[in-house]
Amino acid sequence: MRKVHVDLGSKSYDIEIKNTILDEVGKKLRELSKAEAAVIVTDSNVGPLYAQRLNDSLTKEGFKVSVITFPAGEESKNINVLNDIYNKMAEAGITRGDVLVALGGGVTGDMAGLAAATFLRGIDFVQVPTTLLAQIDSSVGGKVAIDLPAGKNLVGAFYQPKAVYIDPELLSTLSDRFLYDGMAETIKYGCIKDSNLFAMLEGYQDKEELLENIAEIIELCCNIKARIVEEDEFDTGLRMILNFGHTLGHAVEKKFNYTTYTHGEGVAVGMAMLTAKSEAIGIAKAGTSERLNKLLVKYKLPLVAEMKTEDFIAAIKLDKKKAGSSLTLVLIKDIGTSILQKIDFKDLENYL
Amino acid sequence: MRKVHVDLGSKSYDIEIKNTILDEVGKKLRELSKAEAAVIVTDSNVGPLYAQRLNDSLTKEGFKVSVITFPAGEESKNINVLNDIYNKMAEAGITRGDVLVALGGGVTGDMAGLAAATFLRGIDFVQVPTTLLAQIDSSVGGKVAIDLPAGKNLVGAFYQPKAVYIDPELLSTLSDRFLYDGMAETIKYGCIKDSNLFAMLEGYQDKEELLENIAEIIELCCNIKARIVEEDEFDTGLRMILNFGHTLGHAVEKKFNYTTYTHGEGVAVGMAMLTAKSEAIGIAKAGTSERLNKLLVKYKLPLVAEMKTEDFIAAIKLDKKKAGSSLTLVLIKDIGTSILQKIDFKDLENYL
Repeated sequence: MRKVHVDLGSKSYDIEIKNTILDEVGKKLRELSKAEAAVIVTDSNVGPLYAQRLNDSLTKEGFKVSVITFPAGEESKNINVLNDIYNKMAEAGITRGDVLVALGGGVTGDMAGLAAATFLRGIDFVQVPTTLLAQIDSSVGGKVAIDLPAGKNLVGAFYQPKAVYIDPELLSTLSDRFLYDGMAETIKYGCIKDSNLFAMLEGYQDKEELLENIAEIIELCCNIKARIVEEDEFDTGLRMILNFGHTLGHAVEKKFNYTTYTHGEGVAVGMAMLTAKSEAIGIAKAGTSERLNKLLVKYKLPLVAEMKTEDFIAAIKLDKKKAGSSLTLVLIKDIGTSILQKIDFKDLENYL
Repeated sequence: MRKVHVDLGSKSYDIEIKNTILDEVGKKLRELSKAEAAVIVTDSNVGPLYAQRLNDSLTKEGFKVSVITFPAGEESKNINVLNDIYNKMAEAGITRGDVLVALGGGVTGDMAGLAAATFLRGIDFVQVPTTLLAQIDSSVGGKVAIDLPAGKNLVGAFYQPKAVYIDPELLSTLSDRFLYDGMAETIKYGCIKDSNLFAMLEGYQDKEELLENIAEIIELCCNIKARIVEEDEFDTGLRMILNFGHTLGHAVEKKFNYTTYTHGEGVAVGMAMLTAKSEAIGIAKAGTSERLNKLLVKYKLPLVAEMKTEDFIAAIKLDKKKAGSSLTLVLIKDIGTSILQKIDFKDLENYL
């Protein structure tokens, strides 16, 4: 088994990566928790596939299990669905000593994590991420949130899980599009921190070879993220480098109402745009943009979106990364080397 | 000026108690914060009385001020009103570096505090409590929450303010009923920790003498609460003694839909019931119940509510203080001396 430890003092936890770990969640959780009850929060895509196995695993260890299923999709990540989850947790009689298990992709982990962070002022929770994106990114680091009409992730908390259980086998039911959605974040890790990882991704011949190596890729990505989160749990500095491509990516997702582009596709567009411009103005090494674009295309990710500069600026204005009248952009100087660049909001268009 | 320091490491803050401090909030806040914007959250009772003075004080120090006013009353403390606050904060362009000022009683402090805890995953906030209850209890200690249909304070967080500014003069606009509402919590502090405070309250001749001494009473209560919160920030042990009378009190409030009894009146009933029974079964010293009842009556607080034992049990079943199948009750052995008693849920009726 691959294991990544996240060292956050009293909030430390392990990320465990292993095929079929889904069937061991009950046993592992019992070592961490004396809870009488466990509530599984999942969505209408993932629930039918995997909730029963998880339920069996938990029931076997004596947890009284309830399952809350919400309609799949980013458009569910709102306060009304969160309210439904709260009310169902109250109905199920969940108490402070009980535990929530988030089974699903990023939307599930973010929203269920926020439910865990706030129900009874916080109960324990663990993440069982089922998409590549969630396995390498959103399930790690304790950022939980829902969206507002005004923008993504505008309401949330920093709330660490007690454990993250990653079963790479679950990716077998993921469509190609959502596998590549996750690859955008994998490429991001290569860009900001790890040129070897980037080269590995360049080297795979096809999807089969990628999937043969996916547990190692997940471990590499989780390790990068864990080290960054340890340095900056509350996202006040270093952690911003994880946002490479995200400020523009969120703008793309938002402009098309979160229906046309996946999160990873938005991030791909953001990384490609920023890096092309960075190279043009002499921040990134010559050739960086071409190399990045080639890898994005290899994993079926877009390089542009049908959007005007003013659309980006309007959307970014509300983005939570903006502090006052300035904005911090993540740029890369070379594959594996990133910098934080604080700019005046009025200079933003120079980077688009 | 009276000052109580709450020592919580990096989350430490001061409670400052002074007449007309309302007009100095801007100046004091400017020493703590470089925020460009401040959002005042208040209700339809308090806003018309005091929001303009607070607004002036903040504007003078260069804060760009917006005011969010919601309908006064416990029934506003729900997720729909919270959602309105979120959306108005987004509209006002509040960013991570900005600050929220909660101006009002317990409902305002609890709900605005939760908004601050979760908007953009947490922005700074300060409390300007305007009721006696909020000044001595709910504004201190970082417990923020909203209610669910299933019960009070079921969704919330532990989120400390950056400061609490208490202006005892604001109590002059409080109705007698809500002054006495706060007195129930004052009496509670005497019961659980401070027999001298209890004796002071016994000694006052009338409301005038009480109000002459109110700043000192507030300071004494805040000091007791601060010391308890320091020991148990996340309410996993000692802090439970602050719940003396509250488990039954919440049941009373809930049974009558939060309209018939104020919070303090519910707590008064809870303290009176539990102490009468404690004395009957030999836990409390003989005479304790009579002394408590006399003081409650002096401050126009009820000793009983029209409720059956099974009503209490049903309501308490959902109360968040219940962990699994057991329950912790706070009982007093004598005025000023409290104990935590863990009981099986099935034995609850022996204490009612």
